[in-house]
Amino acid sequence: MSSSSPMRSLHINNINPHVKEAKYAVRGELAIKSEEYRSRLNRGNPPTPPENPLPFDTVVSANIGNPQQLDQKPITFIRQVLALLENTGLLENEEALKTSFGYNQDAIDRARWLLKEVGSVGAYSQSAGAPGIRQSVANFIERRDGFPANKDDIYLSAGASSGVNTLLHIICAKPETGVLVPIPQYPLYTASLSVLNARCVPYYLDESHSWGTDHYVIKEAYEKAVSEGTDVRAVVIINPGNPTGASLPEGDIEAVIKFAAEKHLVILADEVYQTNVFIGQFHSFKGVLRKMQQKEPGVYDYVELASLNSVSKGMVGECGHRAGYFELVGFDSEVQAQIYKFISIMLCPPVIGQCLLDLVVNPPKPGDPSSELYEKEYNGIKNGLKQRATALYEAFKEMEGMEIGEPQGSMYLFPKIRVPPKAVEAAKEADRTPDEFYCLRLLDATGICVVPGSGFGQKPGTLHLRTTFLAPGTEWVGRWTKFHKKFMEEYS
Amino acid sequence: MSSSSPMRSLHINNINPHVKEAKYAVRGELAIKSEEYRSRLNRGNPPTPPENPLPFDTVVSANIGNPQQLDQKPITFIRQVLALLENTGLLENEEALKTSFGYNQDAIDRARWLLKEVGSVGAYSQSAGAPGIRQSVANFIERRDGFPANKDDIYLSAGASSGVNTLLHIICAKPETGVLVPIPQYPLYTASLSVLNARCVPYYLDESHSWGTDHYVIKEAYEKAVSEGTDVRAVVIINPGNPTGASLPEGDIEAVIKFAAEKHLVILADEVYQTNVFIGQFHSFKGVLRKMQQKEPGVYDYVELASLNSVSKGMVGECGHRAGYFELVGFDSEVQAQIYKFISIMLCPPVIGQCLLDLVVNPPKPGDPSSELYEKEYNGIKNGLKQRATALYEAFKEMEGMEIGEPQGSMYLFPKIRVPPKAVEAAKEADRTPDEFYCLRLLDATGICVVPGSGFGQKPGTLHLRTTFLAPGTEWVGRWTKFHKKFMEEYS
Repeated sequence: MSSSSPMRSLHINNINPHVKEAKYAVRGELAIKSEEYRSRLNRGNPPTPPENPLPFDTVVSANIGNPQQLDQKPITFIRQVLALLENTGLLENEEALKTSFGYNQDAIDRARWLLKEVGSVGAYSQSAGAPGIRQSVANFIERRDGFPANKDDIYLSAGASSGVNTLLHIICAKPETGVLVPIPQYPLYTASLSVLNARCVPYYLDESHSWGTDHYVIKEAYEKAVSEGTDVRAVVIINPGNPTGASLPEGDIEAVIKFAAEKHLVILADEVYQTNVFIGQFHSFKGVLRKMQQKEPGVYDYVELASLNSVSKGMVGECGHRAGYFELVGFDSEVQAQIYKFISIMLCPPVIGQCLLDLVVNPPKPGDPSSELYEKEYNGIKNGLKQRATALYEAFKEMEGMEIGEPQGSMYLFPKIRVPPKAVEAAKEADRTPDEFYCLRLLDATGICVVPGSGFGQKPGTLHLRTTFLAPGTEWVGRWTKFHKKFMEEYS
Repeated sequence: MSSSSPMRSLHINNINPHVKEAKYAVRGELAIKSEEYRSRLNRGNPPTPPENPLPFDTVVSANIGNPQQLDQKPITFIRQVLALLENTGLLENEEALKTSFGYNQDAIDRARWLLKEVGSVGAYSQSAGAPGIRQSVANFIERRDGFPANKDDIYLSAGASSGVNTLLHIICAKPETGVLVPIPQYPLYTASLSVLNARCVPYYLDESHSWGTDHYVIKEAYEKAVSEGTDVRAVVIINPGNPTGASLPEGDIEAVIKFAAEKHLVILADEVYQTNVFIGQFHSFKGVLRKMQQKEPGVYDYVELASLNSVSKGMVGECGHRAGYFELVGFDSEVQAQIYKFISIMLCPPVIGQCLLDLVVNPPKPGDPSSELYEKEYNGIKNGLKQRATALYEAFKEMEGMEIGEPQGSMYLFPKIRVPPKAVEAAKEADRTPDEFYCLRLLDATGICVVPGSGFGQKPGTLHLRTTFLAPGTEWVGRWTKFHKKFMEEYS
């Protein structure tokens, strides 16, 4: 890696400008700096000089929803099955699996079934994923919504991110193409739209009403964009919200669907946090749409909905396995053929991840031998997440200048912060936004890595930060509280 | 999935036209049809009506290099370790692993080391992959080339395809950007350039000289493109070749590097078949470049090289795990920062695949307890591939109108076919190219799925097909021979 030279083909000013424009703060400067701190602490490389030791012992990566990095244990049943798929030789001694390693018959049976479906986890599957696993996903959606689902409309993907990438590639036809995106949002959307040289049409979520989604606001944003020559083709909804955690009530979903039907917009429903709900209830867009179609036959026949889900979130938190899926509803068959071709170019999603998805959408049933432990582990994680969210929320409530609503869901808190004018001044001098400045100072002082609100978008004049509530224990919350007090004093 | 309607947002004529333009025959119509045949045979769904049974018992997927779908067994050591990473509970009883399941201590130790490096395979890693595994890759490259490699220039990826996608995203700055691509080529390149709305600048490989790469031909293609207003920025070399199998001699690589240096072109060296060599020898672009830099200091300092590798190919054939890497040489540091940001948007490559890559680049050493079996399995696969290639080659030599050189490497044979004029006529009537027509008839008659030469590009007026030589046994070769004879008779 060397510095710029006219002798090279590529330099910062002649590479793809749309890649350059893209912003992705979740793994940006702060995350990179935190990894450097982690490596200094773990390996002494570069060694921490005695005259300049780090003022913390551990780095807390609260910048990204990555539960297993923060010591969340994987669910036993899931990993038991995956191990059998990787080393099928283990299946040759069922007795030893049971007596020496606590396997139950249902884990062994499931592994045998999955091997029948995929052949080997080392073989490419069909581009959209193994048919048997897509059928499992269809069955899961049917059970969830009470309406049929068809495996041929289900596309397995390497996490929801890859699914979003596929769908935006299809939708973004020209530079004038616009996609409605909630603000604040998970920056995958704005980053992908930048790379695709298409327009982000922002609509603001209502912080004063628990980050609610107001279809009038969407309509206003839509009309403004259209008046500016934007060809708005789709609307993104993140439900439950990231970074907000808010769950949409059924009526709000209906309003969005009605609006999308009226304006012929594709609905991209990012539903990866569908089980991470503390307040309210998750309603799937597919379920609500089907009910509307039943109530008013013919009116909503042509609504195009893509619903995304992932194994990275929920209680399993299996981010590293890169698995997820999207379901298409109401899409044109020729368009689906193009989607199929597009995903074929990258061959197929990771097959062991596909198998993991099968286990997530089809866990042991009550009465199955592995069911009891599965439920215990699942609920343990669920309760733990709620407790951590609440503890962090309570701490934020006590901090001067922090404003925060009760934790609603997802894996994040997104408090509003007010910093003293002197801190705003100091940030300006450091060529930083005030929220960036705060988060950088927090990292340098405590090792806690969070993401400034500007990384997700926020109403002008407001400042926020996003933190996961995944880290165990309360020691780190104490570090933060102490830092915050000092920071506020320093700039008061 | 339903038919076109003006009520929908998306139809075939208003989606992204660049996605529509992309062609990817390796998983195109023939592959989809073969999967339908497979499902009819395996499940009787839709049932094969007695009056119209399929004229074959099995589908042979020779369209794609997917060894484990064709019954290649995974390497024991690799899968033993992966199982321990998925189910770390297995590590709690080392004795049982050894006595009941044949584990050696080195597999157990490696699993513990990898767990230390990645934490959990369910956690996101750093965007470019776990640092310890990137170091393993760097060590492998050092051993291979005899020159240093730096882990910070190594980016793990979800297979080489994902790496190519990343690099082309950076390079393709505008519609006039051009990339030199060998013809015939693996269609990932043309498909990706279509999606990115950039120009493919084709240069032909020399069939009459064992599919050699002639730098004068590259120069000619370059000059023609430049004269047409194309901003040529990179040259793709597939070495050993796909679909041709040809290995470049050192002198040819030097000539390409000289040319790239002169014209300031990035070299994209697709080296995924580096161990799949029967004739000639693999020389890495990195190794040759470093030697040239030693010989003539200062002259080649600014050559930009990206070298790609994958666990899908080689002897392990672990396609389903989606793992690979690319190494950057001579890239500008600001450009590398943009590459890092770009890959961050998709978070990280599958972590279990990263671990698999570690095992592939760092197999058991001679004397390690797992070494003997590893070598035996590895060589068994290598010899098996050569035998299969030779058997298929011998069969092709006997077929009327087939022209083929000795198998050189990779996983493919790419014979030239001449079909009778009546067959060309029949193809025209069926709105097919003659090679497509032949391959479709082959599939319908025998269940053997191969890819027409038009899917890779071929000199006008010539016809080819690509088949893998991965399928075991000779029964399927017999099917093909019989079909070919009948086909030639029918149209003679």
